[in-house]
Amino acid sequence: MRIRTMMLGAAMALALDAKADEGMWLPSQLPGIAKNLKDAGFRGDPKDLADLTRAPLNAVVRIGGGTGSFVSADGLVVTNHHVAFGVIQYNSKPDRDLITEGYVAADRAGELPANPDYRLRVTVGFDKVTDQVLAGARGKTGRAYFDAVDAASKALVAACEKDGIKCSVANMFYGRDFYLVRQLELRDIRLVYAPPRAIGNYGDEVDNFVWPRHAGDFTILRAYVGKDGKPADFSPDNVPYHPPSHLQISTEGVAEGDFVMLAGYPGITYRHRTAAEFADQIEWRLPTSVAVLKALQDVIEAEGKADKEAGIRYASQLQTLKNGIKRFSGELEGLERSDAVTVRREDEAAMLAWLATQPDAKTLKPQIDQAMALIAQGKDVRERDLLVGLLSSQTQLMRGALSIDRLAVERPKPDAERESGYQKRDEELIQSQLKQIQRRYDARVEKALVTSLMTRYQKLPEGQRLPEVDKVFGRTPADLAKALDHIYGATAFGGEPERTRLFAATPAEIEKSNDALLVAARTLRPALLRIEDERKAREGDLLRLRPSYMQALIAYREKQGKAVYPDANSTLRVSYGKVTPLKARDAVTYAPLTTVQGIVEKNTGVAPFDAPKPLLDAIRKGDFTGYADPKTGAMPVDFLSNLDTTGGNSGSPVLNAKGELVGLNFDSNWEAVSASWMYDPRYKRAIHVDMRYMRWLMDKVYPSPALLKELGVPAK
Amino acid sequence: MRIRTMMLGAAMALALDAKADEGMWLPSQLPGIAKNLKDAGFRGDPKDLADLTRAPLNAVVRIGGGTGSFVSADGLVVTNHHVAFGVIQYNSKPDRDLITEGYVAADRAGELPANPDYRLRVTVGFDKVTDQVLAGARGKTGRAYFDAVDAASKALVAACEKDGIKCSVANMFYGRDFYLVRQLELRDIRLVYAPPRAIGNYGDEVDNFVWPRHAGDFTILRAYVGKDGKPADFSPDNVPYHPPSHLQISTEGVAEGDFVMLAGYPGITYRHRTAAEFADQIEWRLPTSVAVLKALQDVIEAEGKADKEAGIRYASQLQTLKNGIKRFSGELEGLERSDAVTVRREDEAAMLAWLATQPDAKTLKPQIDQAMALIAQGKDVRERDLLVGLLSSQTQLMRGALSIDRLAVERPKPDAERESGYQKRDEELIQSQLKQIQRRYDARVEKALVTSLMTRYQKLPEGQRLPEVDKVFGRTPADLAKALDHIYGATAFGGEPERTRLFAATPAEIEKSNDALLVAARTLRPALLRIEDERKAREGDLLRLRPSYMQALIAYREKQGKAVYPDANSTLRVSYGKVTPLKARDAVTYAPLTTVQGIVEKNTGVAPFDAPKPLLDAIRKGDFTGYADPKTGAMPVDFLSNLDTTGGNSGSPVLNAKGELVGLNFDSNWEAVSASWMYDPRYKRAIHVDMRYMRWLMDKVYPSPALLKELGVPAK
Repeated sequence: MRIRTMMLGAAMALALDAKADEGMWLPSQLPGIAKNLKDAGFRGDPKDLADLTRAPLNAVVRIGGGTGSFVSADGLVVTNHHVAFGVIQYNSKPDRDLITEGYVAADRAGELPANPDYRLRVTVGFDKVTDQVLAGARGKTGRAYFDAVDAASKALVAACEKDGIKCSVANMFYGRDFYLVRQLELRDIRLVYAPPRAIGNYGDEVDNFVWPRHAGDFTILRAYVGKDGKPADFSPDNVPYHPPSHLQISTEGVAEGDFVMLAGYPGITYRHRTAAEFADQIEWRLPTSVAVLKALQDVIEAEGKADKEAGIRYASQLQTLKNGIKRFSGELEGLERSDAVTVRREDEAAMLAWLATQPDAKTLKPQIDQAMALIAQGKDVRERDLLVGLLSSQTQLMRGALSIDRLAVERPKPDAERESGYQKRDEELIQSQLKQIQRRYDARVEKALVTSLMTRYQKLPEGQRLPEVDKVFGRTPADLAKALDHIYGATAFGGEPERTRLFAATPAEIEKSNDALLVAARTLRPALLRIEDERKAREGDLLRLRPSYMQALIAYREKQGKAVYPDANSTLRVSYGKVTPLKARDAVTYAPLTTVQGIVEKNTGVAPFDAPKPLLDAIRKGDFTGYADPKTGAMPVDFLSNLDTTGGNSGSPVLNAKGELVGLNFDSNWEAVSASWMYDPRYKRAIHVDMRYMRWLMDKVYPSPALLKELGVPAK
Repeated sequence: MRIRTMMLGAAMALALDAKADEGMWLPSQLPGIAKNLKDAGFRGDPKDLADLTRAPLNAVVRIGGGTGSFVSADGLVVTNHHVAFGVIQYNSKPDRDLITEGYVAADRAGELPANPDYRLRVTVGFDKVTDQVLAGARGKTGRAYFDAVDAASKALVAACEKDGIKCSVANMFYGRDFYLVRQLELRDIRLVYAPPRAIGNYGDEVDNFVWPRHAGDFTILRAYVGKDGKPADFSPDNVPYHPPSHLQISTEGVAEGDFVMLAGYPGITYRHRTAAEFADQIEWRLPTSVAVLKALQDVIEAEGKADKEAGIRYASQLQTLKNGIKRFSGELEGLERSDAVTVRREDEAAMLAWLATQPDAKTLKPQIDQAMALIAQGKDVRERDLLVGLLSSQTQLMRGALSIDRLAVERPKPDAERESGYQKRDEELIQSQLKQIQRRYDARVEKALVTSLMTRYQKLPEGQRLPEVDKVFGRTPADLAKALDHIYGATAFGGEPERTRLFAATPAEIEKSNDALLVAARTLRPALLRIEDERKAREGDLLRLRPSYMQALIAYREKQGKAVYPDANSTLRVSYGKVTPLKARDAVTYAPLTTVQGIVEKNTGVAPFDAPKPLLDAIRKGDFTGYADPKTGAMPVDFLSNLDTTGGNSGSPVLNAKGELVGLNFDSNWEAVSASWMYDPRYKRAIHVDMRYMRWLMDKVYPSPALLKELGVPAK
C-alpha cells in the first residue's frame, strides 16, 4: 500500500450534514464563514485569507504532485520527504546515497539541482470565466454541450499560457462555475535539507495509513530563477527566487484540542454526488471492482506459480491490482461503517421535499429529474463499460494495439482537435508504454487475463452486448478460447520491431495491417468510439443539468445555516479543525501526539524500523530543551487532526490560530479512505509531522544552524 | 500461543519495591496490611479474609488446573470456559457438538457428568508444620538436608490423606515456613451451562494475551457428592454438594478506578530470587534457551520440508518449541523493558548495606554469603545441565530408553523411596509416553536433534564435560555422527514390541540388554544420577540457607514499611488492586472495559471471529436494560485490572469492595509475561470477563432463568 495523501485519489466529508470541521473551502468563501472560523479558534481576520493570489496563501504552492509552502524570503520551500523523494533519488549515486544518508547542504553552492522535470507552481491568477466557458454551450445538449465547454476551455488555456505561466480551467460545483487558474511555473528547484529515509519514511509500508506514526516526513528545497527573476531551467548562474510571501514557522507547539488550519491542493472528492451515485458506488462499483480485480489477481498468481519468469513480468501489475483491491475494500468498509447510502439518501430526500415548497422548484426540479434519469441510465451499461475499460487497462499487448489503432484515427486531425491522450505531446508516453511491453508481457498470462474479463462479459444480458466485441471474442467460452488462440498465435505485435514499425507507420499503413491483433483492435474500434461518444454525451448533459442540483443543495444548506464548498478539483483549498484523538476501536484510543519514545519502542534495527544511530543517541541524550512539550516534557514527533484532506494535500502547511506553521500534512488514517465520498467526523483524521520535531532534528541531530536562522527559528 | 493464566508458569511483581497493588498475599497476612486494603478501597473487614478454610475464601476452589468458586448453596461452581473445556469436549459427540453449540442444562437431570478424572478441591486445612518438616533436617547439609525435608514431607502427606482428603506440603519463603494443606477432593462434577466456543473463546489464538478482549470465558458446573455427603465417583444417585459458603454475584458493575480483589491458586513466581539469579535468567538462561530451542526448531522445519511424513510426526513438538521460544522471548523482552537486572541489583545492594548495620548481620550474613556462593557455582555447569536435560525432554526414542533404564534403578526400591516420576503411580504415564513414540518418532529427525544439542555440548570447556557423555557421543562432530549412526542403526527399541517387552521386563533383564540404545542409556546413567545428586545437594543447601536471605529481606521491607508475600506456590492467595487502563505504547491507551460493540467490530464471520447469530441478533436488538453501564449505556464484555496474577489464576473470582463477584479472571496481557519475575505496574494487567456480560447472555441470548434464580440474580 502506498497511497499517501499525495496520491490518494479521494478523501473527505459528505456535505449533507456539514459537521463542524468538514470542508475544503475556496479561500473566497472564508469571509462568508468568518463566524465559524472564529468560533473554532482562528485568531486572524478571515478576510486576509480570501485571495489565494495574495499573502499568506500565495506562499502555498503545488510541487511534485503534492503541496509545499515558501518558508523564507530567499525561496526555501518545505514539503514532505515523499513529495521530494524523486529529487533525493535523482541526486543519489552509488557512492553518495542521499536516500539512506539524508542531505544537509553545507551552503548555497551545495544545494543540488532536482531532476529537470521537477516543477513548482505559484498560483498568480484565479478568475471566474463561467460566461466565456459556457457562452458557446448554452442552448446545446449532450455531446455538443461537452464539446463546446471543452473547446472554450482549451482556447482560454491557449491564450493564457506564456512567459512561464501555466493555465488550466477549474470546474466548480459540477459545471456551475468555471475559473481560469494561472500559475507561475518554476523549473530550477534544488535540494537543501533531507533527513535519512529511516527518519523521513520511518515505518514505511508497515506504518502507511497508520496512527500512531513516527515519521519525520519533511524535506527542504529552494526555488531558483534566472538573473532576470523569470522562470528558468537549471543554471549555475540562477539566483534564489523571492516569493511574494512566506510562512513563519511557529516556535510554540500544538496540544490536543488546539485550532489548526491547512491549505493545499486536494485532488478529487465526490461528496456532492447524488444519492443514486452513492448507492451505485457502494452497492455496485466498489464490490464489483473488487471481485473483478480479485479474479485478475488470482489469474496472475496462478500463472506466476506455474511459470516463475511470467510471475516476474507481472509483479508490478499484481502489486497495482492488490493496492487497488485493498483501497476499494477500505473505501467500501468505511462507507458501510458510516452507513453512507442511508445518510445521503435521507438528506437528498429532505432537500427535494424542501425544494418542492420553493418558487425555484419549477425551473430546478425538471433539470434535477433529468440528471437523475441520466445517472440511472448509466446503470444499464455500467458493467459492460467497466469490463471493456479493463480490457485495455489490464492488458499489455492488447492495450498497445488499441493505442496504435487509435493513433491511426487521431493523427490525421489538427492537433488541437485530437482526443486527449492522443495529441502530439502524448505520443512520447504511448511510445514508452509500447517499449514496456518487452518486460511486462507474457502471451499465456495475457490470454488468461482477457479470458477472465471476457468470460464475465459473455454473461451480460443481451441489451449490454456490443456486436463488435462479440465478433472479436465470440459468444461462448469455447469461441473465446479459439479467438484468443488465433489472435495471440497469429500476431507479430509481440515483437518489438513490429511495434516500433507500426508506431512510426502512417495511418494508412496501420489501416492496412493484416496482423491478427491489429485486425481485432480495428474491429473493436467502432464500439470503443461509440462508448466514448455516449460517455461524453452523458457528461455534457450532466454538466448542463447538475448545476441545478447544486443550486438546490446550496440553497437548502443555506436554509440550514450552512455553507457549501465545491468538491475538490486540485485547486487551492483551506480546511480548519483541531488537534484530535482517534477512538479507533472498542476500548482503543489514540492520543493525537506521538513522541520520540515511540521511535525507540518501534525500533527493531531492521528496515523500516531502523532509526539512524545519531537519532537514537540524541533521544537517549534527551536534550529537548526548547522543543519538548511544555506540559509533559516529551519530545513530539507527529500529530493528528480532524482536518479535511485528500490526495494532493501531501506537504500542505498546517497553521495554528495565529497563522504560523506548526506542521506538515503527510498522510491519513486507514479509516479515512472513504472520506473521498463522506466525511465521518468519528474517523476522518489527517497525520502531520510536528515542526518541533523538524526543528529539533535540524538543531541537534543533523545540524544546519544557517538554515534554521534563515527559517527564522535559530538553533537553541 | 496458548498460555492463559491457567498454564502460565509464571507471573507477577518483584517484591523489591512492593508498589501499590503488587502482591499475592496469604490470607493470614491480610489483617497485617489492613490499612493498605482499606486505603485501596476495600469496605469489608480484612480479618474476615484471614482464614482460607472459612467463608468467604473457602468458596474459592482448585479445579481442572485453574481456580473456580462456589456461587450457590447447591454446589454451582463458576470458572473459565477454557478451564472447563475438557468437560465440554468430553460431552461432545458428532451429533451433539457442545463445543460449537454451547450447553444449557434444562434441569438438574440434564447436568452432564465431567470426564472421570476431572477434580475439584476445597481447602479444608492449612497448618504450619515447619517444625515437623525441619526436625530431621537440622544440623544436616546438602543432599542429607534435602532428603530429610523430602522424607518428612512425604510422611506428613501419607498420614494426612484419608476419606477423600488430599494433602500436600507447601514451602513458603524458600524453606523458611512449611504448611500442610488439606483439601477435600470432589470427583463428581457436572456441566450445567457453557456458552458456544465462539463466545467462550471468541478471538482464540489471535486474541490470546491481547487486550482489548471480547471473550465470554465462563462456564458453570455443579459439584455432586454421595448421599452421605462424602466425595464419590459419578452416580445418578449422587446429590448436589452443599459448600460451606458461596459467593454472591454482584448486580452492580465495575468502572475504571474501582477497587477489585481476587482469590485463587497462582502457580509459581520468582520475585524473591537473588539479584544473581535475576541476572542469570535475563542475561543467560532466557537468551540461551531461545537460541538452543530455535536451533531445534530449525532442525525440525528443515527435516519436515525434506520429508512431509516426518514433518507431521514432529508437528506437535514443533508447536511446543515455538510456544516456548515465544514465551521466553516475551519474558526476556519484558524484563529488559523493566530493566529488571539493575532494579533488583540495586535493591539487593541496599538491603545488604542496611543489614550490615543490624545486630542480625552476624548470623545472617555468613549464610547469605554461602547461598550466593552456591548460586554462583551453578553457573559453572548450567549450560551442560541445560543441554543434558534437553537430550531427554526433546527426544522420543532416547527419552524412552532413559526412562526404561531409570526404572531398572528405581523398581527394586520400596515405592516410597523411589524417585518422584518413577514411583508406581507414575508408571502409567511412562507407558503412555512409550506408546506415543509410535506416532512421534523419526530416526533421521531425532538424530538431527541430538546432533544439534550435542554439537553445542562438544564445544563446552573441559571443566563441564561428563566422561560418560563423551564416551557415548564422542568429542568431535565426526565421532558424534558415527556414534548416532551406530546407536540408531543397531537398536530394536524403535519397534513397539521391543518397547513393550522392555517396559514389562525385570530390572535384571533391562540391565542385560545389548541393544545399542539401551547400552547408551546405561552408559549415561551414572552421569545423570550425578547431576541429579548435585542438584539435590545444592537445593538442600539452598533450602537451608535461603531463609536467612528471606529473613533479611522481610526485615528490610518492614523498615521500609512494607509487607512481603511469599512467592506463588499453588496455594490460595489474595490480590487486590483496581480496574486500570493500559498505556500500551506511545500514544496508545486501552480503556479498561470493552463492550459488545467490539464483538461486532471484530466479527468477520470466520473463526475465531465468528460470533453466533443469536449473540449478534441480541446485540443488534440492544436490550441491555439492567446490564448496561449506567453512565455510557454500553453493554460491557470484559474488563482489565492491575491485579497480581499468574498461571493457576484462570477462573479466579474477582470481587468488588463489598466482596461481591464482579468478574472472572481469564488471561493476562502479553506485556505481563515477565511478571513471573517482576511486577511492573506500568504493564502488568489481568483480563476478566464481566459478570454483567455473563448474566446478560444467560438472560437474553441463551436463557436459563432457573439458573439465574439459583445464582440470586434473577432474569430482568
